[in-house]
Amino acid sequence: MLLLHRPVVLGLRQAFRSTPSRLCIQTCSTNDSLQPQHPIRNFSGDNCSTRGWKVMGTLLGLGAVLAYHDHRCRAAQKPPHMYTKEEVSSHRSPETGIWVTLGCEVFDVTEFVDLHPGGPSKLILAAGGPLEPFWALYDFHNQPHVRELLAKYKIGDLSPEDNVSPTLETSDPYADDPKRHPALKVNSQRPFNAEPPLELLTETYITPNPIFFTRNHLPVPNLDPDTYRLHVVGAPGHPSLCLSLDDLCKFPKHEITVTLQCAGNRRSEMMQIKEVKGLGWRTGAISTACWAGARLCDVLAQAGHQLSDTEAHVCFEGLDCDSTGTAYGASIPLARALNPEAEVLLAYEMNGQPLPRDHGFPVRVVVPGVVGARHVKWLGRVSVEADESHSHWQRRDYKGFCPSVDWDTVDFDSAPSIQELPVQSAITEPRDGETIESGDVTVKGYAWSGGGRAVIRVDVSLDGGLTWQAAELDGEEQRPRKAWAWRLWQLQAPVPAGQKELNIVCKAVDDSYNVQPDTVAPIWNLRGVLSNAWHRVRVRVAP
Amino acid sequence: MLLLHRPVVLGLRQAFRSTPSRLCIQTCSTNDSLQPQHPIRNFSGDNCSTRGWKVMGTLLGLGAVLAYHDHRCRAAQKPPHMYTKEEVSSHRSPETGIWVTLGCEVFDVTEFVDLHPGGPSKLILAAGGPLEPFWALYDFHNQPHVRELLAKYKIGDLSPEDNVSPTLETSDPYADDPKRHPALKVNSQRPFNAEPPLELLTETYITPNPIFFTRNHLPVPNLDPDTYRLHVVGAPGHPSLCLSLDDLCKFPKHEITVTLQCAGNRRSEMMQIKEVKGLGWRTGAISTACWAGARLCDVLAQAGHQLSDTEAHVCFEGLDCDSTGTAYGASIPLARALNPEAEVLLAYEMNGQPLPRDHGFPVRVVVPGVVGARHVKWLGRVSVEADESHSHWQRRDYKGFCPSVDWDTVDFDSAPSIQELPVQSAITEPRDGETIESGDVTVKGYAWSGGGRAVIRVDVSLDGGLTWQAAELDGEEQRPRKAWAWRLWQLQAPVPAGQKELNIVCKAVDDSYNVQPDTVAPIWNLRGVLSNAWHRVRVRVAP
Repeated sequence: MLLLHRPVVLGLRQAFRSTPSRLCIQTCSTNDSLQPQHPIRNFSGDNCSTRGWKVMGTLLGLGAVLAYHDHRCRAAQKPPHMYTKEEVSSHRSPETGIWVTLGCEVFDVTEFVDLHPGGPSKLILAAGGPLEPFWALYDFHNQPHVRELLAKYKIGDLSPEDNVSPTLETSDPYADDPKRHPALKVNSQRPFNAEPPLELLTETYITPNPIFFTRNHLPVPNLDPDTYRLHVVGAPGHPSLCLSLDDLCKFPKHEITVTLQCAGNRRSEMMQIKEVKGLGWRTGAISTACWAGARLCDVLAQAGHQLSDTEAHVCFEGLDCDSTGTAYGASIPLARALNPEAEVLLAYEMNGQPLPRDHGFPVRVVVPGVVGARHVKWLGRVSVEADESHSHWQRRDYKGFCPSVDWDTVDFDSAPSIQELPVQSAITEPRDGETIESGDVTVKGYAWSGGGRAVIRVDVSLDGGLTWQAAELDGEEQRPRKAWAWRLWQLQAPVPAGQKELNIVCKAVDDSYNVQPDTVAPIWNLRGVLSNAWHRVRVRVAP
Repeated sequence: MLLLHRPVVLGLRQAFRSTPSRLCIQTCSTNDSLQPQHPIRNFSGDNCSTRGWKVMGTLLGLGAVLAYHDHRCRAAQKPPHMYTKEEVSSHRSPETGIWVTLGCEVFDVTEFVDLHPGGPSKLILAAGGPLEPFWALYDFHNQPHVRELLAKYKIGDLSPEDNVSPTLETSDPYADDPKRHPALKVNSQRPFNAEPPLELLTETYITPNPIFFTRNHLPVPNLDPDTYRLHVVGAPGHPSLCLSLDDLCKFPKHEITVTLQCAGNRRSEMMQIKEVKGLGWRTGAISTACWAGARLCDVLAQAGHQLSDTEAHVCFEGLDCDSTGTAYGASIPLARALNPEAEVLLAYEMNGQPLPRDHGFPVRVVVPGVVGARHVKWLGRVSVEADESHSHWQRRDYKGFCPSVDWDTVDFDSAPSIQELPVQSAITEPRDGETIESGDVTVKGYAWSGGGRAVIRVDVSLDGGLTWQAAELDGEEQRPRKAWAWRLWQLQAPVPAGQKELNIVCKAVDDSYNVQPDTVAPIWNLRGVLSNAWHRVRVRVAP
């Protein structure tokens, strides 16, 4: 929603700087095609709308109406200026101005670039040309409110001879995405992001491949295992490696059970505090599989790499990329990559099967104990660098900030990229809002911590956190310092007599005795990551 | 206080099983030497008294008075039975009964042994003999309420010929303790436990040796550096090492700045929730020094030790011991001890000086990132074992439990011994209750996390946690994965206009993005360890 807040504010500022709006409203008020309610309906009707918006709406109130009218009036007053495709394409930098087209319309988004929630660099990729190929990649742009905002920056139309809809030229980059299991709860179709349903999430210790949570940033590449090659840049004085899948399989095969969790798991709870940028993951952006592959340390050693005295990073590049050829990328510290105890894998098997396409076929990185974003899928290239990956997802995303930091004040360089995740737990049974029988209640869930730290205890409260009982830990006992996988847990407890409602809460403790924070608001951050407050579920007790 | 709760309850049970108390009260009510108020004054007047006691007092109310009277009446009614020293000494086990003496009195504490807060094993050490040598070691027994409780178990007196006060036979084990700096805030004199005053705690990044927090479990041994020997048990097939201080100095000298924190730091805040067993440390059971010594991994390697496939532990034994010869002991996992990156030291220097006696002269262990209790002082013996140290302090202390676990239900084997500590921070300026000027307020404090995890941010709130500002981190930048030392921090912020009071709160985030919990009660545990909730300070604003 921040995508909206700031342009609206900017729009307001512009509106109040320009022609008197009240006069304009009077001029336009007889025009039937302009329904004053229309943009308001758009704002409050889109999928992202929340309480935050209602507050925002109240605050902005009249201002938003004035700004909208101001724009529509000006647009209605002048005939559009005509630009050639060539003129548009010469505006690709802050110096010349940054122009883009959508359909036949031309927009000068120079002032908006720094406000782009996905980062300026992403928008600049589209500079001087059509937005459609990018909107095709990031489907969430295709919403009325985004079009409304864009309208503010319109400067004219494309010349008729250049006005060939680029959508006709662009094939659907997602057309070749694999088929998915119908049980998955989809948070976004393009790119595909989905989580297992709560009913299945902790039914089994190992998550079946078809319902393993899927976090794609781009279309799924369709790779031929026979021609697939992994490029590993050699250390100075050592040749680079160009490994086929068979080559990779010749390294000693290592098999470990690892839980992957997206940094955005449980973001939906953070969204209830205040709007954030990101998909509304519930408690299911976490799953567990048995992964098999070559150890990264073995592959790096073969390419001549060893620990350096100065800090260094292993950069991964995926073979998934956007229409400009920009690939997904991420990095981890070299010290972790080379440490055999850290068990970082170049995995080619998931639960005894070749990796499914959604999970990185034929090869992905698995970095036990580390945020999902570093487990680069469809791995194409590995290199050792002095600096972290320059990828957007390493440097301008997946970082945590103080709750007071917003998109106006955020300095992404001031926070470290998320690597190890903090201790986490959630309740999977009963479900929020469910009605349970009196007598005994069974509470079930999962718990996990980053960095190989074992979950040593899960406390459960039936009264909102006043009193606690330790749950029974199920799932596999974890190795010391290598507790890469979650523990499932359950508690069977009598429902206190006369209770009409239970406010069930869980919190986990790891072997560094780190605990989850009590509440969400104090850990709120603008990207909605690291949402690990106590998990709460309210149920009614049947009379 | 649990030391009191249970015996009182037990006493009550006994009282109501025996002669009618009401009758007894009537019988005694004319005896001037028995002031009904007397024991109540003792209960509410001792240093440990808290709100918890007041509640307890209210609950027990009349019952406690009855029980007390019952005992005094019975004592007054019968002439005491006489026992010889030999008879007493034949009662040293649960089978024969466990008897002890104090002064001329004989007590059968068989029923109390399991209730002893220090553990049954500690009390059994005194079985069959006088308590004085142990009370001399653990000074806190010398309080009226402990004597009151003991009185319940009195069975008679020592025969006059055996009634030679053992205090005359026992030299003061603490007589040779070093002199201490007068600035230290003393929590217990015997053994000596003290913390730097808040005013000095974060005045300097390195804590000066004389005010470094001191956590002793026993009297301070007075060791001769010339005859000092460190015994390192050799691996199978390797001779053991017997190292003089000079020998130790021949290993490569390693120097690192490390913050030590007691597991009980900030216990006083936990005590405000509900009584716990332990010293009432405020925010000062933490200090930072530059330590120099031999790396433990180098010494272990010389004794032939290497990583084993199975989990193993390095056990440390101090040269401090109680009157039975039981030494302080603790252990850490072998994997940490042998990992050069973990930088575990056998330190002989503290801030460029030989270790002060209170800090382990001539040699102590320093385990960066790990709870203070494992940094064994006056180190005498190092061995590698399949199991953790069997020391009381490793197995029956320094562990965390669910808030619902009490001394009736605690199973010490069910929780891992504390090693790495969780993320921590506290405010050192302004002080709680202080009056500050309006205008700007400067908030200062410290932050630290266990396991080498760097503090990446400290959030400060002036309104009890509703809004937050990131503080400025001072102190030394820490190395990746080796952030062994604290960060000092400060925030200068305007006092909101019209505010009469500020509710200042701080919370830290480490590089695994672990955070501190909001409140104390949900992390309360019977030993009062791991107290790392948000730190809160209330100040008044001068009008």
